Amino acid sequence: MQDKLIITIGREYGSGERTIGKKLADKLSVPFYDHELIAQAAAESGFREDMFEQLEQRETNSFLYSLAMFGTAGYNRVNMADKLFKAQSDVILKAAKSGSCVIVGRCADYVLRNIEDRVDIFIRSTTAAKLERSRTYPEYQENGRMQERKLVEMDKRRAAYYNYYTGQKWGDGRHYDLCINSGRLGIDHSVNLILDYIKGMMETDNQG
Amino acid sequence: MQDKLIITIGREYGSGERTIGKKLADKLSVPFYDHELIAQAAAESGFREDMFEQLEQRETNSFLYSLAMFGTAGYNRVNMADKLFKAQSDVILKAAKSGSCVIVGRCADYVLRNIEDRVDIFIRSTTAAKLERSRTYPEYQENGRMQERKLVEMDKRRAAYYNYYTGQKWGDGRHYDLCINSGRLGIDHSVNLILDYIKGMMETDNQG
Repeated sequence: MQDKLIITIGREYGSGERTIGKKLADKLSVPFYDHELIAQAAAESGFREDMFEQLEQRETNSFLYSLAMFGTAGYNRVNMADKLFKAQSDVILKAAKSGSCVIVGRCADYVLRNIEDRVDIFIRSTTAAKLERSRTYPEYQENGRMQERKLVEMDKRRAAYYNYYTGQKWGDGRHYDLCINSGRLGIDHSVNLILDYIKGMMETDNQG
Repeated sequence: MQDKLIITIGREYGSGERTIGKKLADKLSVPFYDHELIAQAAAESGFREDMFEQLEQRETNSFLYSLAMFGTAGYNRVNMADKLFKAQSDVILKAAKSGSCVIVGRCADYVLRNIEDRVDIFIRSTTAAKLERSRTYPEYQENGRMQERKLVEMDKRRAAYYNYYTGQKWGDGRHYDLCINSGRLGIDHSVNLILDYIKGMMETDNQG
């Protein structure tokens, strides 16, 4: 493997991205960042952790979201989300600069657009596989089970968040290096396919 | 391998899709359809081959395209493109129903949306790799070399054609099973990665 490699993973809600990213990082023996980034961003910025948690899942309407989250008072209510995004991006940049890693979500592909040796991955899944996963992972459940409408709603929020901050389209195959349907491929094969891609890419780069 | 498998390949212009598709079909020992479909559609419909050839590359403005292609006379000038698309789709359906195959372009993923045992792939590439390919493949050249603006223009036309007929977004990673950046991965590794995906998918399907 080359000296440094940053892997960013965008993903649909419930596509197993956290498990895939974690296994991938373990196989490559590099740090894995998902919620871990939030704790660090909170520590470094002084904002509460739950404010970062809500950032990616906020309502698609920025204004309504800001009202709900920060109240009606104050001239800077809309800017608060931007401040959180900036604090989070600083932590992502710092992590990437310090060495190889796997980063899930948080527009990391865009935040790190000027960092070379990056592979951008997007993981989607099938509705059936997402619902199947929700039986094993209680965090996906709502009132005891995962609702299909929740899947759609969460992805809408992620798309709005991503599109707003990056000016790109979330999930657009034309700006990722690799997009996988983990629902058909399964978790372990998804991990292996990403490793195959990285291996092939490095051999090609060496040839070129 | 299971009894039947249809592989559709959408692609950016100059991404090596024809070479990748052909090698993939050879390794799987199944028929490969690209321009081959056009000759068959022409034979079966009575329309000239060059009319099908222009279909996917027409100007993004349907009306101007129709004027240029079919003249100003006649009430059915816009419908002509639809008739060509229908004739081509009939040939694609017939090919897919007769057994496993690899089909490049022509909205095959959409045309075959009701056919099971299908894998939908999208291949993108980098501008550098496309320009590099154009040195070897004269069909990509224009006035002796490939122009970057031609790459952009051809993809715009393909996107307009795809989006018009399918109501989906060309290249959107969320409706393909696998999207690859062949520019970074290289042609042979791309073929192998698709084979890895198919193998992994079949093992997962067997488990589920």
